[in-house]
Amino acid sequence: MVTALATRSPLPKLGDAIAKLKNLLGDRVSTTPAVREQHGKDVFHHAGEPPDVVVFAESTDEVVEIVNICAHHNIPIIPFGTGTSVEGHISAPLGGLSLDVSRMNRVLRVNADDLDVVVEPGVTRMALNSHIRDTGLFFPIDPGADASLGGMASTRASGTNAVRYGTMRENVLALQVVTADGRLIRTGGRARKSAAGYDLTRLMVGSEGTLGVITEVTLRLYGIPEKIAAAQCSFTALAGAVDTVISTIQAGIPIARIELIDDAQIDLLNRFAKLNFPIQTTLFMEFHGTEAGVREQAEMVQAIASDNGGGNFMWSAQAEERTKLWQARHDVVWVNKQAYPGWGMLPTDVCVPISRLAEVVRESKADAETHGIVAPLVGHVGDGNFHMVVMMKPGDTGYAREVDAFNDRLIDRALAAGGTCTGEHGIGLGKIKHLYAEHGESVEVMHAIKRALDPRNLMNPGKIFAPDVTPSLH
Amino acid sequence: MVTALATRSPLPKLGDAIAKLKNLLGDRVSTTPAVREQHGKDVFHHAGEPPDVVVFAESTDEVVEIVNICAHHNIPIIPFGTGTSVEGHISAPLGGLSLDVSRMNRVLRVNADDLDVVVEPGVTRMALNSHIRDTGLFFPIDPGADASLGGMASTRASGTNAVRYGTMRENVLALQVVTADGRLIRTGGRARKSAAGYDLTRLMVGSEGTLGVITEVTLRLYGIPEKIAAAQCSFTALAGAVDTVISTIQAGIPIARIELIDDAQIDLLNRFAKLNFPIQTTLFMEFHGTEAGVREQAEMVQAIASDNGGGNFMWSAQAEERTKLWQARHDVVWVNKQAYPGWGMLPTDVCVPISRLAEVVRESKADAETHGIVAPLVGHVGDGNFHMVVMMKPGDTGYAREVDAFNDRLIDRALAAGGTCTGEHGIGLGKIKHLYAEHGESVEVMHAIKRALDPRNLMNPGKIFAPDVTPSLH
Repeated sequence: MVTALATRSPLPKLGDAIAKLKNLLGDRVSTTPAVREQHGKDVFHHAGEPPDVVVFAESTDEVVEIVNICAHHNIPIIPFGTGTSVEGHISAPLGGLSLDVSRMNRVLRVNADDLDVVVEPGVTRMALNSHIRDTGLFFPIDPGADASLGGMASTRASGTNAVRYGTMRENVLALQVVTADGRLIRTGGRARKSAAGYDLTRLMVGSEGTLGVITEVTLRLYGIPEKIAAAQCSFTALAGAVDTVISTIQAGIPIARIELIDDAQIDLLNRFAKLNFPIQTTLFMEFHGTEAGVREQAEMVQAIASDNGGGNFMWSAQAEERTKLWQARHDVVWVNKQAYPGWGMLPTDVCVPISRLAEVVRESKADAETHGIVAPLVGHVGDGNFHMVVMMKPGDTGYAREVDAFNDRLIDRALAAGGTCTGEHGIGLGKIKHLYAEHGESVEVMHAIKRALDPRNLMNPGKIFAPDVTPSLH
Repeated sequence: MVTALATRSPLPKLGDAIAKLKNLLGDRVSTTPAVREQHGKDVFHHAGEPPDVVVFAESTDEVVEIVNICAHHNIPIIPFGTGTSVEGHISAPLGGLSLDVSRMNRVLRVNADDLDVVVEPGVTRMALNSHIRDTGLFFPIDPGADASLGGMASTRASGTNAVRYGTMRENVLALQVVTADGRLIRTGGRARKSAAGYDLTRLMVGSEGTLGVITEVTLRLYGIPEKIAAAQCSFTALAGAVDTVISTIQAGIPIARIELIDDAQIDLLNRFAKLNFPIQTTLFMEFHGTEAGVREQAEMVQAIASDNGGGNFMWSAQAEERTKLWQARHDVVWVNKQAYPGWGMLPTDVCVPISRLAEVVRESKADAETHGIVAPLVGHVGDGNFHMVVMMKPGDTGYAREVDAFNDRLIDRALAAGGTCTGEHGIGLGKIKHLYAEHGESVEVMHAIKRALDPRNLMNPGKIFAPDVTPSLH
């Protein structure tokens, strides 16, 4: 599906488009190879095709103009935030323009009384939290990387806090979007709920740039809890850890984070992030609430863990302890890159009903071991979502084939358990065939919507839908 | 827009369609006037047009057949659950078939470990809660009426528990839908989150039957809290009650219900539901949690209320006290009908950012008073959503015109405050012009989706979209 740039036929009107773009944006238009490469390739396993041209937009008006120029000249548009997505979303398999919105990074309005905020799409989640620090509010969605909020909306991102606060699906209140015909629309609104017409906000969230370019995002905020405590607990058996998670969720304990890290990943963290955990399946947890509430939650989970063979339960409301724990969790990607220098990384992303989690994790770990695949495991297990961080030996095509087959089996196993091929990374280039396996004829309905809103397939073409059902571009 | 049945041109192939339907369904096809009338008119203010024919489906396979017959003969399809929606959703302004799914009322699968359930669309929310009583789980969405879950999904219903548990938007995990071309699709899945393609579930939720017929609904369930306590508190000034709500939400107190009832409505409840509240603006509240948690929440809210002039704060974990309180809240519709015998009812439904709630409520109450409009007020104020239950003098067209103008001003006021014309009742026939005022060009995008999925406009035609942008039916 990914055509090498050398063999791909050039876009016939590219030169005209670039001339107009330079007229509009001056030196914020780049065709230099390094800039193009950087905009087509993420840190994960997809090869990545560079776009033909990169532009840096600084306002919604500019995005409208850029989309109009591209529409007029039949140039594909690939929105770009921080380039931290996983499934090749920023790649340009059909060439075209990378629309970099990272300079649209203003927090436009903080409505503290209403617990919402309006941001430009290039604002990152950490920049937002830093901006609103003094309001007593925070934005909880935390996918690990310091991703842009426009990108997080586009991929329906979630991460460690989703078990309590939901994903981007639940936390985007409204969007401003430039559609394929250059129309500027507003979806949703600042009311907490609405029954006014089709839910275009939720349609755009997770549409991976294939329906339009997001130019503004309105997000829910939350009060910083009076007390936050972190906890950790080690288990000799995987099942004990997973059963602890299931019982915690079923008991309705409003846990804010509950992450599983397997023994292999703990070993790497110990060795490369200077930690000293028992090399066992471990849960990292966080509790939010009042002082009494946090204590009560921690004690309830400790009792559940103890019933399930959990040991070394430690909890602390000290900020340093907490930061250390979550830094370790977020260091996984970098620790693994350090442990396997020069290797690539393919993070799997299935999500299953929680009752099937232990079985799917156990079978998948056994499968990896049988096939000699290096794949430490971390998971947002409160949601039934886990990642096996498959390390990719460079230049070993036999191993790469084994990994592909392993990921296919993992996804088939998740689908058979009533789950999804992707909990939070999206379809992009990497999971098109799995989307069809998961959703069948629904994909035809998705594609009918795509054709209705983007009939010439200019918005991030080649993503989500297979080429054989996608109208040809030229 | 609503054409009287007598003047509407008959559907040319109706007879052929009815013959085929009788062949399929036997005596579950009715053209008797009483059945048609009952399926075209709800208890609220819209006049209601009877459909030409009513069918009672008992399975998904039958729904597929019915849709195929209607598609073949160009017969509009209006899905019908319990007929408790507000904005004329069940009316047949263009004639056609009412597809009654109330006999599709089986709970198909309770997945207690995963906190989800799969139901047919005719199961009502109370029937579901009764069915799962022994599992320790419950389904929280409570729009007042004992509506069908298919209908609640279609109108994106919510109600008193939404402030904590969300609306149908957050609680429908998956759907099975028969689309206009007779295709049976499944949207979503049982995983708690997914980034796999467009969010068709959220597109269907709130689409008011205009994109397909729902034949199966998968819903989130929640553990019944260890402790539930109800509370009430009276305020001399509206602002004090609203400020109590705002501070409670901002403090992150996980209140399960927080409902405002104004003095006029309290007076009616006292007189017709044999209650004995002070005739003041009153908050009804409910707290869910552990024993200690519920006590802590109630004490925190009591302190906030006291700071805002609230008196008579009473809370109780007794089931009888709680039931009495919520019965009173749900009795509003029937109490008002009793207080004004023979009058109609138009419940307004705006929802605004909470910081603007006091101002919008105050101005709207003053507006009603100025124009002699009887409109007691109840509200899901934790979400910024309130209803003025406008009582409609029978046969008084001058008063009816005043009410229309009043509702227009109310909605304009809500939109100017960043709110929505409908928090939970939907657009139907009644709010088409307001949808355009609220969403502007986005409505064109919604309509492009409607045309793509239902090109002949057979699915609940005349709802949501104005006739002048809707392709003509015949």
